[in-house]
Amino acid sequence: MKPGKFIVIEGLEGAGKSTAVAVIQQQLEQHGIEYIHTREPGGTPIAEALRNIVKQGVDDEQVCDSTELLLMYAARAQLVETRIKPALVQGTWVIGDRHDLSSQAYQGGGRQLGLAKLQALKQLAIGDFEPDLTLYLDIEPSLGLSRARERGVLDRIEQQALSFFERSREVYLAQAAASDKIKTIDASQQLASVSSDIEAAIRAYLKDVD
Amino acid sequence: MKPGKFIVIEGLEGAGKSTAVAVIQQQLEQHGIEYIHTREPGGTPIAEALRNIVKQGVDDEQVCDSTELLLMYAARAQLVETRIKPALVQGTWVIGDRHDLSSQAYQGGGRQLGLAKLQALKQLAIGDFEPDLTLYLDIEPSLGLSRARERGVLDRIEQQALSFFERSREVYLAQAAASDKIKTIDASQQLASVSSDIEAAIRAYLKDVD
Repeated sequence: MKPGKFIVIEGLEGAGKSTAVAVIQQQLEQHGIEYIHTREPGGTPIAEALRNIVKQGVDDEQVCDSTELLLMYAARAQLVETRIKPALVQGTWVIGDRHDLSSQAYQGGGRQLGLAKLQALKQLAIGDFEPDLTLYLDIEPSLGLSRARERGVLDRIEQQALSFFERSREVYLAQAAASDKIKTIDASQQLASVSSDIEAAIRAYLKDVD
Repeated sequence: MKPGKFIVIEGLEGAGKSTAVAVIQQQLEQHGIEYIHTREPGGTPIAEALRNIVKQGVDDEQVCDSTELLLMYAARAQLVETRIKPALVQGTWVIGDRHDLSSQAYQGGGRQLGLAKLQALKQLAIGDFEPDLTLYLDIEPSLGLSRARERGVLDRIEQQALSFFERSREVYLAQAAASDKIKTIDASQQLASVSSDIEAAIRAYLKDVD
């Protein structure tokens, strides 16, 4: 049996990741491809518990930067081991709402923890495992945040200063430029255009792997 | 103001760590030294939540080995940053029930994850921070476990096979032999003798740092 593929959606808050996931789901269904959907941090009971701790803290305590980083990778290790790898082995595709590139952008760029440190941690947590295709939804942080604000309350990470997201975006753009497994989508366009770019990217990918 | 000292108690299940903590507390009190007591994993609301996840899992899901390792270090980073370092800076001593050496023994030795890997992770989580003095309570795993069993239900880590604890003990003994900041106490003796050895070790240390 052919192993499944791991397709990841990446981008800043308000870039339109949920819509993108829906577009991809529809396309896989049209091609009769079985898939599951995961989100990070999260996607298993343990990883979701870690997500809550990162986002809300416990009692009045908030996580420190290095704790946050380790929890992100703990959640990722659990998700990859218990859900993503088993699905791929069975031929099921996985659509991921965020993955390792988010840590590189947010913790490495936003919090300036250093990409070498993140690379070492990634190796410890999940080894050489990586997505087959990443769609990076690129958007100006100010535009993305104003869209995210319309959705409701902002969480701890979303409350960071604009410069945090600008540094995160720089990492996204640099990594996308360095890898042919990361496709950049202009997410500042009208929704219909964004969706049609995503469709085109997935169509091209499906043709490639056929 | 003189910074406080970080004294850690280490050892396998059933080695008598709780009694040792009580003995040290009494001695610090006799010398008019202010202290706090921490346990690992745990010691802050967030770190205690992580402890519960490691020990109990969430719903029916248990943590994978690499997740466990990352959670141990996440809890440790949070504890060191929010409780241990602030106490030491204020001149308060810290008595730690377990610290990094436990990860080296249990995850490195017991689960055979490799000490180089653990060393890299330790650097990422807490840098060069380390205890001023560690008392390692050495005991045969079979004797320790039979004592632990008398205390009641064994948790997930305590349910490991005997060979797990034998590998853990080897790491404890090797690290103790390699560092003059780790003192080995023979914990297979009668309780009164163990306590008096601990008292002697602390007395010598207090004289050293006076």
